[in-house]
Amino acid sequence: MKQSQMLIPTLKENPADAEIKSHQLLVRAGYIRQIASGIYSFLPIGRRVLNKVENIVREEMEKIGAHEMIMPALEPSELWKETGRWTTFGSELMRINDRHQREFALGATHEEVITSIVRNEVKSYKQLPLTVFQIQNKFRDEARPRFGLLRGREFLMKDAYSFNDSYESLDETYQKMFDAYSNVFRRCGLNFRAVIADSGAMGGKDTHEFMVLSEVGEDVIAYSDTSRYAANIEMAPVVTTYEKSSEKPKTLEKVATPDQKTMKDVADFLGHELHKGLKSILFNVDDRFVMVVTRGDHEVNDVKLKNLYDADMVELATEEDSRRLIGAGFGSLGPVHVPEEVEVVADFAVEALVNVSCGANEEGFHFTNATPERDFKVNQYADLRFIQEGDPSPDGEGKIVFARGIEVGHVFKLGEFYSERMNATFLNDQGKAKTMIMGSYGIGVSRTLAAIVEQFHDERGITWPANIAPFQVHLLSLNPKKAEQKELADQLYETLQQAGIDVLYDDRKERAGVKFADSDLFGVPLRITVGKRASEGIVEVKERASGDQKDMEQNDIVEYVRDWYQG
Amino acid sequence: MKQSQMLIPTLKENPADAEIKSHQLLVRAGYIRQIASGIYSFLPIGRRVLNKVENIVREEMEKIGAHEMIMPALEPSELWKETGRWTTFGSELMRINDRHQREFALGATHEEVITSIVRNEVKSYKQLPLTVFQIQNKFRDEARPRFGLLRGREFLMKDAYSFNDSYESLDETYQKMFDAYSNVFRRCGLNFRAVIADSGAMGGKDTHEFMVLSEVGEDVIAYSDTSRYAANIEMAPVVTTYEKSSEKPKTLEKVATPDQKTMKDVADFLGHELHKGLKSILFNVDDRFVMVVTRGDHEVNDVKLKNLYDADMVELATEEDSRRLIGAGFGSLGPVHVPEEVEVVADFAVEALVNVSCGANEEGFHFTNATPERDFKVNQYADLRFIQEGDPSPDGEGKIVFARGIEVGHVFKLGEFYSERMNATFLNDQGKAKTMIMGSYGIGVSRTLAAIVEQFHDERGITWPANIAPFQVHLLSLNPKKAEQKELADQLYETLQQAGIDVLYDDRKERAGVKFADSDLFGVPLRITVGKRASEGIVEVKERASGDQKDMEQNDIVEYVRDWYQG
Repeated sequence: MKQSQMLIPTLKENPADAEIKSHQLLVRAGYIRQIASGIYSFLPIGRRVLNKVENIVREEMEKIGAHEMIMPALEPSELWKETGRWTTFGSELMRINDRHQREFALGATHEEVITSIVRNEVKSYKQLPLTVFQIQNKFRDEARPRFGLLRGREFLMKDAYSFNDSYESLDETYQKMFDAYSNVFRRCGLNFRAVIADSGAMGGKDTHEFMVLSEVGEDVIAYSDTSRYAANIEMAPVVTTYEKSSEKPKTLEKVATPDQKTMKDVADFLGHELHKGLKSILFNVDDRFVMVVTRGDHEVNDVKLKNLYDADMVELATEEDSRRLIGAGFGSLGPVHVPEEVEVVADFAVEALVNVSCGANEEGFHFTNATPERDFKVNQYADLRFIQEGDPSPDGEGKIVFARGIEVGHVFKLGEFYSERMNATFLNDQGKAKTMIMGSYGIGVSRTLAAIVEQFHDERGITWPANIAPFQVHLLSLNPKKAEQKELADQLYETLQQAGIDVLYDDRKERAGVKFADSDLFGVPLRITVGKRASEGIVEVKERASGDQKDMEQNDIVEYVRDWYQG
Repeated sequence: MKQSQMLIPTLKENPADAEIKSHQLLVRAGYIRQIASGIYSFLPIGRRVLNKVENIVREEMEKIGAHEMIMPALEPSELWKETGRWTTFGSELMRINDRHQREFALGATHEEVITSIVRNEVKSYKQLPLTVFQIQNKFRDEARPRFGLLRGREFLMKDAYSFNDSYESLDETYQKMFDAYSNVFRRCGLNFRAVIADSGAMGGKDTHEFMVLSEVGEDVIAYSDTSRYAANIEMAPVVTTYEKSSEKPKTLEKVATPDQKTMKDVADFLGHELHKGLKSILFNVDDRFVMVVTRGDHEVNDVKLKNLYDADMVELATEEDSRRLIGAGFGSLGPVHVPEEVEVVADFAVEALVNVSCGANEEGFHFTNATPERDFKVNQYADLRFIQEGDPSPDGEGKIVFARGIEVGHVFKLGEFYSERMNATFLNDQGKAKTMIMGSYGIGVSRTLAAIVEQFHDERGITWPANIAPFQVHLLSLNPKKAEQKELADQLYETLQQAGIDVLYDDRKERAGVKFADSDLFGVPLRITVGKRASEGIVEVKERASGDQKDMEQNDIVEYVRDWYQG
C-alpha cells in the first residue's frame, strides 16, 4: 500500500500521558489513537497487526475443534441476576437502559449468555463436549485506565467456553486449550510463562494465567530457574524444610523498646538479625480474630491464610481491635500471653526457632529469648508466607526467581458455578439429568499486541516479530523527484505485490531523514531503500531488528524476501 | 466439520414471533438465536455465513483503496455535541454513563469519531483523499425491533468515511464506492437496485440506497421497466406532460354534498371520475400556511413540497387552523376564494384541467365546473405528487413499476456538514485553510444476510448462493451403524478436507429423515449422501437449489465439487 494514501500519523514526541514503551510507540508510530480514557481507535496499520494476532488465535482455536460464534455486547440483566454477578461484578460492569427502561450489561464477559443458549439447545450427553469461542470488543469500566492498551475500558478479547459431561472430559478440553494458548503466544514470538493462578471465588481447581515477562507487568511471577514451574506469587507453596535450631533456650526476658516501630528497628535495637525476630499480625478471618506469626524476614500471604480457614473474607484487624483485645497496638504484638479469643497460627519456619524476639503485647516492650511451645502456644503451623527468591521450586527442580508479568491469557475450570445457578443440565447415557461442567478461556487480543511491543522494541521504535508485522517489507523511495529512483521504486512495488508480498511503499515527498525515522518507528522487519544506486538497479536491504544491511540487485529481492520469511 | 460436535440446533416449528422467512429459517436452521428483542447471537454456522459476507465487503473496500481500521463502540458525548447530534439523533441513540458520570453514546455510527481523528492528524491536501472503513457491531434502540436481523438493535455494519479536498474529488470517491457496493451485492447473488434516495437534513446532493427487491421490504421503490433508473418513491420526479383539456369551460356552480367525506364519495355523488375532482390539502410549511392542490387520483408528496419551499419543516395543518383560516374542515377545502394568508400551489397536472369539482370552503358544499385561473389563482405550479405505476420513467426510458425493497446499503455525499461543525480543515496547495469534503457509506452486513435468505429459500429451507454458503458440501452418512457406510463417509470426509473443500459432515446417530430435513433447512448447495450403494463406492450427489440428483463414483467427487464451484 502507498503510504501517501494511508492514515499513518507519526509523532516525534511521546504523548504526555504515556508512561510505558508500548503505549508511547503505538501512538507515536500511528497504530492507535486515544478517543477517551482507556478507549482507543486502531488506525489502519494498527488494525493490520491486530488482525495478525486475531488470526493466530482463530487458527489455534479451530485446530482444537472450538467453533467461532458471536454474541451480542448487550446482555440482559436478567441473565446476570441468575448467577448473582449483576451485584457481585461491581462497578467495572457497565450498565445501560434501553428506551423501555430494560437493563443491560455491556459485555464484560459472556458466561451467562452462552450458558443460556446451551441450556436451551443442548439436551443430551451426545452433544457434548462442546467448545465455542468469539473475538469481540469487551467493556470494563476500570477505575484507573492506564498503560495504553494494557489496561483499557474497551478492548479486544477472545473468549471461549466449554461444556463437558464430566470433570475428566473438562480436564481434556482444558489441556487442549492450555496447549493452544501456548502455541498462540509462541507464534506471537513472546517470552511467556503459564502460571498457576488463584481460582478466587469461583471454586474451580485448576486455573492458569499466561504471563508475558515484562518489567511493566502488574503481577509478580515466581518461577523455577531450571524447570517450567511458574506460579502467581500468591499461589506458590513454600516447600522449604526448616531444621530446628540447635541453640540452647535462654530465659524469656521483657525489654523496653521505646520508639522502635518496624521489625527492622526492633532487630537493630536488640542487636539481632531480622530472621531472629517474630512478626505477628492480627487478622479478621470471617467472624474470628487470628494472629499470624512468621519470621521477621518473611511476609504473610493472606491467600494462604484464607485457604487455611476456607474463609470468605480475610482482612487486617483494626488497631482499635488490637488494643481492645490484646492491649497493644500493631508495633508491639506477639504470641506470648494472647487472650483466648484470638487464635494463633504460625508459619512452618517459626516451629524451628529458638530464642527469638517478639512483641510483648504492651506498648514499647518486646520479649527476647522467646521459644515456641515453651513460651507460647500455636494452634496450627502451616505454610503461611510468600515464597521468596532463592527458595526451592515447589516442583523440586531448581530455585525460585521472580519476574513481573503481563497477563495475556487465562484458562479456567469453572466446574458447575454457572451451570448450577442457571440450571444447565443434560441427560447422561443413563437418561439421568446432570449439571454441565464448564470451562472458560480468555485471551486479551489487544493487550497481547501491547505485550509484544513491550518485548520487541529498541530506542528507535518497534521491532515486530515476523508473524505480527503489519507488512513484510517497507519500501522507501528516498528521492522520488529523481526519475530513476521513482521508476525503480514503482517497479519494485509492483513486483513485490505481484509476488504476494505485503509491502508498505513510502512514496511521500518527505526528506530521507523523515522516512528513515518513520520506518524505524513502524518496525516492519525488512526495509528496502531505493536511493543513489538506483540507476545501477541496486537497492539497500536492511533488517530492522539486527540492523544488518547490504546492497542487493533488484532482481534478487523477491527471492530474498521469501527466503527471509520462510527461514 | 463434524455436525455431532457443532452447536447447530434445528427446530421443526417456526418461532412464534417470526413473521418473515429469513427470520424463521435462520432461527430454525440454527444460524441465530435471540438474546433479547432485536438482539441476536450468531451460532457457529451463522458466524460462517456472516464471515462470507464480511469478507466480500472487505475485499471490495480494499480494491478501491479504502483502509480498514476500528473505532470504539463507546463514543464521548462531547463529540456528538459538537455536531448537535447528541440532541437530534433522538432516542435511537443509546447512552451510557461511566463510573465518573461521563456520558458516552453507544456507537450507532462514527462520523464524529472519525472526523475528530482526521482533523487532528490530517493537515495537508497531500494527505487527501483518504477513505477508511470498519466492520463492527452498531447499536440503535429501535422503537419496534422486528423481522429478525432486518430491524435489530445491535447489528453488524460496515461503515466507511471519505475525506476529500474538493467536491470533484468526492464525486470520484462516491462513484468508486457506488461501484464497489454494486459488486458486493452482485457477489452476494442479490437482485437489487441502486435507488436515488432522500438526502434528508444533511444537505448533501447525491445519495443512493441499495435496495434488495423483496415483498417484506419496508420501502417502496419506483423503477423503470426497461432502464436502470430506480428511486425511492419519495424522490422520483414526475415528468409526465399534461395536455390541456379541450373541454369548453362551463359555469361554476356550488352544490350541496351532504355527508360526502372522501374524494371517492364526492366523485360518486357528483357522478364524475376521480381525476375530475381536485384534492386540496392545507399544510404548515415553516411559518406559513400552504394549500396544495392535486388531481383527485394523485397523492401529495410532502418531500417535494419541502424542497419547493426549501423548508425545514412540513406538516399537515390542524383542522382547527383550517376552520379558523378558511372557514371549513378538511373535507370541504378547495382553491376558490382562499384568504390571502394562505398560499395556493398546485401540481402541474392541475394546470391542464377544465370543469373540475373542488371543495367550496363551506361545510357540506362543493363547486363543480371549476377551472384554474378563471375561478382560482395558483401562486405556483410544480411537481408536487408521488409518481405512480405506469408514469414515464424520469430518465425517459420505459415506464415506472413499483417494488418493495430492503435497504442493505447507503452511499452519501455529506459535504461539509460534519467537517464544518467540527472544524476539520486542511491547507490547500495555496497554503489556505479549507474545510474537508466528506462522504459516508454504510452496508448492513447482518441485514444483507437476511436479505439473501429472503431471496434464496424454498418451502424446505434456505438455498444459499455459492459465495455465501456456510459450507461447500454437506456430507451425510445415512446409517453410520453399517460399517461400509461409515467407512466410506469417513473416507470421503478426509478426502474432501484434504482437497481444501469446506465440508459439514453429518455423522450423527439420527434417522435418515431427520438428516435430510436438516440438510434442506441448512441450505448447503451440494449434498453428498452415503447410503445403500456404499459397498459399490457409489454415493448420491444432489443440488440443493435445483433438486437435481445423480449417483456418482466416490473417486469423481472432488473433481465434480471443484468444477461445480468454479463453473
